[in-house]
Amino acid sequence: MSTDGNPAAEDETRAEPPRRSRPLRGLRIVELSTYVATPLAGMTLAQLGADVIRIEPIGGAPDRTRWPLTGSGTSLYWSGLNKGKRAIEVDLSSARGRDLVAELAVRSGIVVSNSERHPELGFEALRERRPDLIHVLLTGRRDGGTAVDYTVQAATGFPLLTGPEDSANPVNAVVPAWDLTAGLYLATGLLAAERHRLLTGEGQQVRIALEDVALATAGNLGYLAEAQLSDTPRERCGNHVYGTFGRDFATADGGRVMVVALTVRHWRDLLAATGLTEVVAALAAALGVDFTEESERYRHRRVLGELLAGWFGARPLAEAESALGATRVLWSAYRSFAELAALLPANPLMARLVQPGAGEHWAPGSPVVMDGEQAPPEPAPLVGQHTAEVLRDRLGLSAADLAKLRRDGVIRDAGGAPAATDHTERS
Amino acid sequence: MSTDGNPAAEDETRAEPPRRSRPLRGLRIVELSTYVATPLAGMTLAQLGADVIRIEPIGGAPDRTRWPLTGSGTSLYWSGLNKGKRAIEVDLSSARGRDLVAELAVRSGIVVSNSERHPELGFEALRERRPDLIHVLLTGRRDGGTAVDYTVQAATGFPLLTGPEDSANPVNAVVPAWDLTAGLYLATGLLAAERHRLLTGEGQQVRIALEDVALATAGNLGYLAEAQLSDTPRERCGNHVYGTFGRDFATADGGRVMVVALTVRHWRDLLAATGLTEVVAALAAALGVDFTEESERYRHRRVLGELLAGWFGARPLAEAESALGATRVLWSAYRSFAELAALLPANPLMARLVQPGAGEHWAPGSPVVMDGEQAPPEPAPLVGQHTAEVLRDRLGLSAADLAKLRRDGVIRDAGGAPAATDHTERS
Repeated sequence: MSTDGNPAAEDETRAEPPRRSRPLRGLRIVELSTYVATPLAGMTLAQLGADVIRIEPIGGAPDRTRWPLTGSGTSLYWSGLNKGKRAIEVDLSSARGRDLVAELAVRSGIVVSNSERHPELGFEALRERRPDLIHVLLTGRRDGGTAVDYTVQAATGFPLLTGPEDSANPVNAVVPAWDLTAGLYLATGLLAAERHRLLTGEGQQVRIALEDVALATAGNLGYLAEAQLSDTPRERCGNHVYGTFGRDFATADGGRVMVVALTVRHWRDLLAATGLTEVVAALAAALGVDFTEESERYRHRRVLGELLAGWFGARPLAEAESALGATRVLWSAYRSFAELAALLPANPLMARLVQPGAGEHWAPGSPVVMDGEQAPPEPAPLVGQHTAEVLRDRLGLSAADLAKLRRDGVIRDAGGAPAATDHTERS
Repeated sequence: MSTDGNPAAEDETRAEPPRRSRPLRGLRIVELSTYVATPLAGMTLAQLGADVIRIEPIGGAPDRTRWPLTGSGTSLYWSGLNKGKRAIEVDLSSARGRDLVAELAVRSGIVVSNSERHPELGFEALRERRPDLIHVLLTGRRDGGTAVDYTVQAATGFPLLTGPEDSANPVNAVVPAWDLTAGLYLATGLLAAERHRLLTGEGQQVRIALEDVALATAGNLGYLAEAQLSDTPRERCGNHVYGTFGRDFATADGGRVMVVALTVRHWRDLLAATGLTEVVAALAAALGVDFTEESERYRHRRVLGELLAGWFGARPLAEAESALGATRVLWSAYRSFAELAALLPANPLMARLVQPGAGEHWAPGSPVVMDGEQAPPEPAPLVGQHTAEVLRDRLGLSAADLAKLRRDGVIRDAGGAPAATDHTERS
């Protein structure tokens, strides 16, 4: 493996045509990160073929034990967000450890991080050592202040519009949308900067704040403009889809189904499937409204919804699914994760993954399919699994160098054991 | 403007060094899209400097009138998701119209779309005309079936874990997390494919399914592995943050604040600020647990939460904010969009935007800051605003060609008027 960090001159890219699902093969990234957003950025790029080396402090970062845990203490959360990376374990509290990481960053040429703790690993210091460095940093707030997805949710309006219409209190979303979008903005920003470097030779810093991602999205979806320009604040609408016809329905057997009629064709199909075409036509005539207008379907969502609720409530889920399945209507039954798990073996996104500490299970590959090829899931590393091979191959350290660093507590190998990986090539 | 579609040979890139906030300057993208995900992909790339041309059918796509609307009928949603693009209006139901768009796609070299309606505009047909074409396609399901964010939410488990602990029913999130993440995966996949083309000359198709994005994320966050490997299904935990200490608290004056103590330091700070250090120490001793362990703080979240709830409930929001503001604790008061709107003028992410049909308001620039530079918001186009200039500059059509196409109903200009933009350069 070459130690030349210039991705344009990367050996691997030139030696053989990259497989289609790995268009980023040859890209070398050092990741210094915790929690969701930055690890997702690194994993997304790793799944597209980049060589992503995750730097762990001795013993691993705090998020390595985040719930859910297996019986043996392996974090399924950490494992899920670090698939396909390599990991090295370095004492970041020591100057020698930080210098090793700085050298690795310089040789790799790209850093993605959510930490500003160590100035030696920051953009300014690293750029001194490599002028074309790309440094991608996530902060909580733009001013460098801290924030996490749940506090950003609170700060940006959505929890007061989420949840049942009669909620007295804010409802946070369990899907950490701001972490996820921030992670993917990091990946996008990194690739944009790397494109610029390929064409011009110039590096740069890319900064993104978690709160900015949420605010930008609130603006992009029209919420901020509406709050400034409209006299009537938006109200909670439960599981109704704002501005069109969509809501959930209970079936006679306790099932529940989400139904969305976005277009006139969806709407006509829905009425035909539920036998309500004539009733709704009579209602439209009596009210003097045209339900082929999306806005009218939303304005009258409650009465239309009650008519449809009667139909759904009178039959079991299977019958409703069968009727909807014969239409163009957008719909899905609600599933629990247990129900979802039973469907994974048939899904081509999924493959069996043997994750040390967790056991074998179905795990997703990359959702990005390149020319019909999809990168399958690869295991997450153990903390320190690749310490020896990375420092040897990337920095040229000898077995004696590694032994001394190990004795001095500057580096550690997986599980704290003398590295069994010393003489192992990466598969 | 050159009509050469090879981005690596793009005049603009070579003529002057791109401004740092526009690293994708020179990239030419044709967008054939509706709703959230694909427009967000295009806008994200436009905000990084790409020239994104949105193709509208005559009269505009259905989403151009999606709520919220201004009094004059302008969609703030559509405007928010199409900032900084150009737009042309073409009769896609006619072979001549489709051929114009195909030619534009071929000259531009990159297509991003969520439509498979017209085979002439699909990957196979366009690749025949340009072998190195990059075609990025979003579908609902992997098999090409339809789905939208709310039906994907239902299908993938999260609504049964969202909302108050005593909810009987699923709670959908108003933030369309799957639309947003899908849009950013599209942008990431597009840039990865374009990097591959820059290095090898090869184009390819990138396909992403909205449902796959949700499933992959459920796997990445550990939910799928947990459902397969754990005996105890995860339960709703309201506004508690799963696996750590975090929840919302009501204050004496009806305020509400989200508080997260992720680390031992956060936790100690929170106890000190609320005067509960000794009480919690006594509780820990009595229970025989160690609250410096994140897992223990989560397991005992209810009793710890009730102790803290007493403190928050006894004082007004301003006093709680002042106490928290002096600590490292992660927190934010919940804000409505009206409260948020009042804060926008002070936020450097925001700038005044004059949006035709909507009026002037504060709008977000790109959340991606490149070397300290941030792309400010640019107005969304009118449907057909750039019909004449794009067809003239990109396809070399003459004024007479344009007049004939206009007469024949194949193209239209903004508002259906003969294009005032005929002789206007893009600013």
